[in-house]
Amino acid sequence: MRRRGSLKWDRYDPSVLPCWVAEMDFDMAEPVRRAVADLSAAGAFQYPLRGGRPPDRLVADAFAERMERRYGWPVDPDCTLVVTDLVQAIYAAVTAFTRKGEGVAVQLPAYPPFRAAVEDTGRHAVAWPADPGPGGYGWDLGRLSQDSRPAAKLLILCNPHNPTGRMLSRTELAALADHVVRNDLIVVADEIHADIVYDGRAHIPFASLGPEVARRTVTLHSATKSFGIPGLRCAVMHFGSRALLERFTAVLHPRLLGQSSIAGIEATLAAWRDGQEWFDAVLAHLQGMRDYVRAVLRAEMPEIGLHPPQATYLAWLDCSAMGLDRPAGEFFLHHAKVAFSAGETFDPQASQFIRMNFATSKPLIDEILDRMRQAMRSR
Amino acid sequence: MRRRGSLKWDRYDPSVLPCWVAEMDFDMAEPVRRAVADLSAAGAFQYPLRGGRPPDRLVADAFAERMERRYGWPVDPDCTLVVTDLVQAIYAAVTAFTRKGEGVAVQLPAYPPFRAAVEDTGRHAVAWPADPGPGGYGWDLGRLSQDSRPAAKLLILCNPHNPTGRMLSRTELAALADHVVRNDLIVVADEIHADIVYDGRAHIPFASLGPEVARRTVTLHSATKSFGIPGLRCAVMHFGSRALLERFTAVLHPRLLGQSSIAGIEATLAAWRDGQEWFDAVLAHLQGMRDYVRAVLRAEMPEIGLHPPQATYLAWLDCSAMGLDRPAGEFFLHHAKVAFSAGETFDPQASQFIRMNFATSKPLIDEILDRMRQAMRSR
Repeated sequence: MRRRGSLKWDRYDPSVLPCWVAEMDFDMAEPVRRAVADLSAAGAFQYPLRGGRPPDRLVADAFAERMERRYGWPVDPDCTLVVTDLVQAIYAAVTAFTRKGEGVAVQLPAYPPFRAAVEDTGRHAVAWPADPGPGGYGWDLGRLSQDSRPAAKLLILCNPHNPTGRMLSRTELAALADHVVRNDLIVVADEIHADIVYDGRAHIPFASLGPEVARRTVTLHSATKSFGIPGLRCAVMHFGSRALLERFTAVLHPRLLGQSSIAGIEATLAAWRDGQEWFDAVLAHLQGMRDYVRAVLRAEMPEIGLHPPQATYLAWLDCSAMGLDRPAGEFFLHHAKVAFSAGETFDPQASQFIRMNFATSKPLIDEILDRMRQAMRSR
Repeated sequence: MRRRGSLKWDRYDPSVLPCWVAEMDFDMAEPVRRAVADLSAAGAFQYPLRGGRPPDRLVADAFAERMERRYGWPVDPDCTLVVTDLVQAIYAAVTAFTRKGEGVAVQLPAYPPFRAAVEDTGRHAVAWPADPGPGGYGWDLGRLSQDSRPAAKLLILCNPHNPTGRMLSRTELAALADHVVRNDLIVVADEIHADIVYDGRAHIPFASLGPEVARRTVTLHSATKSFGIPGLRCAVMHFGSRALLERFTAVLHPRLLGQSSIAGIEATLAAWRDGQEWFDAVLAHLQGMRDYVRAVLRAEMPEIGLHPPQATYLAWLDCSAMGLDRPAGEFFLHHAKVAFSAGETFDPQASQFIRMNFATSKPLIDEILDRMRQAMRSR
């Protein structure tokens, strides 16, 4: 793993097992690897054109075809922009659809770049905190207050949710849709984890709930998460109406956002076209690891709470019952030599949480759980 | 060529020889090809880290090292942003350093995206037209009028110049520097052709003229032009002072600009580190083709004027003495089946010019010149 030169494996010293940044440790899908190898072998790094069309357009078409096939959601490829990454897309949407000082609602806990995007662009983060319930974490609409000053103009919705692994039900999504329509909110729907869903569940694109919802929703998607290729930088922003796209491009011209490389584009096309077999095997393994982690924690480390994730390869572990005198991430980094993502980076209140990434092999999961157990015993 | 799927070779029907978009027809440098092949073989498409540092930083360091070594120009890597392409960088600089309605000076003829960036962002293009002189095209400071309404706040300087192939002398650059300091202009210096210079000339980075010049100059550079890898999307914006960088990032956060892919980054590093031998051979060939094209035109098509380019693999051919009743690009496309870049896309007044790309093999150059000759005879 370390030889690849990845952020996950090279950030900490070699005695520390990395269990943090959301990327997978598996070998790449062969069709994806081959797509880039073929480009290299052909020396095909010129200004690209594919069948007379810019390759961005092929990604837009492939995205539309995929959304229709998987979710019965008809998507207009003309309302799709290809960008380099989801974080860029979040900064762009916040910049285009809100003004400095205006409110942007963010679910808590939140993927840290969401709050960074709001703060770095001079907007005001309006927290929408999760509450644990019997079915896992949920977000009460009563807490998405329109009384906040400033009121939120835009909501960043992460579904399936990072870091809790929660998938909102159709009922929850419909209630949220009703709220955003009534309050005239723009929704930026990060659906990058849409493929990684367990127990036969089906992802529901927020924009698919109806035309009134679509016309205020920007859907963000990418093959980089499911196929483990974030370094290739290719992501999609889909605008649910032409008017929404035009409102965006009136502020930010697409060329200001740069271009995805032909390597990222060809890898994305190969993943979506030929990667399903590889992905199905990965998904089965991930579901097994989720069940295993949950079972071991329940049996041997019951102080650690976990609502089993319905999606994502991330587990949001509640360590508050351990009674630690320091942040849980810090405790495990020092005493278990395991680097989790620290809860407080997702929510300042969540220092007794850690985010575990279980997208790795069973032996490594065993080693991680073993180190955790040892650290907890030796307290 | 056509099998690679490139814009240059696939845009026109197969009977047309492409001689337009500025990319080269040569095989890629082996170290560059290998850099991408190695990434693919290792499956190294995760979030990248290199020796504990983000790979953008390696590009910034390599750029600084290269500028120091080649031009004695000390560059602060901390004032360098890695973006995906030069056109993005132009849109970004215009957006960050000017307001809607303000003037942006652009040399004419101009690479078409320069004027597009000015117009798409709602700025006002202030033309700075070239005049032909005995040493080639030049831009008279008297014509860079500060009387224009609105006055220019920013100048897009392309040097070496696309499409004329002119390199400004130290004297010309110094006079321009004096002008921009006195008039408090920001300069965006597109120096992407800096490597491709002939007759033993040495490129002079505009920002190297002194601290007063540097602190108002953004230098744009990339390995993609010299090494024929524009599809990999990796370019550098260097800000001549920390204050200038901060002024930029206060308007456009770097994350809004996205990220270059690890393929583009590794290819750039390999090109700059190990590509010199390949490039030297390419440059010798290009200089030979420049001389050959010039000699054939002079001997056999004297109606076509050419100030031989001092740099770039582009020749700006003046066809006005041909007395055509239509744009010269259109004439040659229909009658010679050769696709040049049409002069009017560089300057509305320049429909009797074409831009020829001579970065191809001698047999293809011969075929192009032959088709031109035939078309001219059969008028």
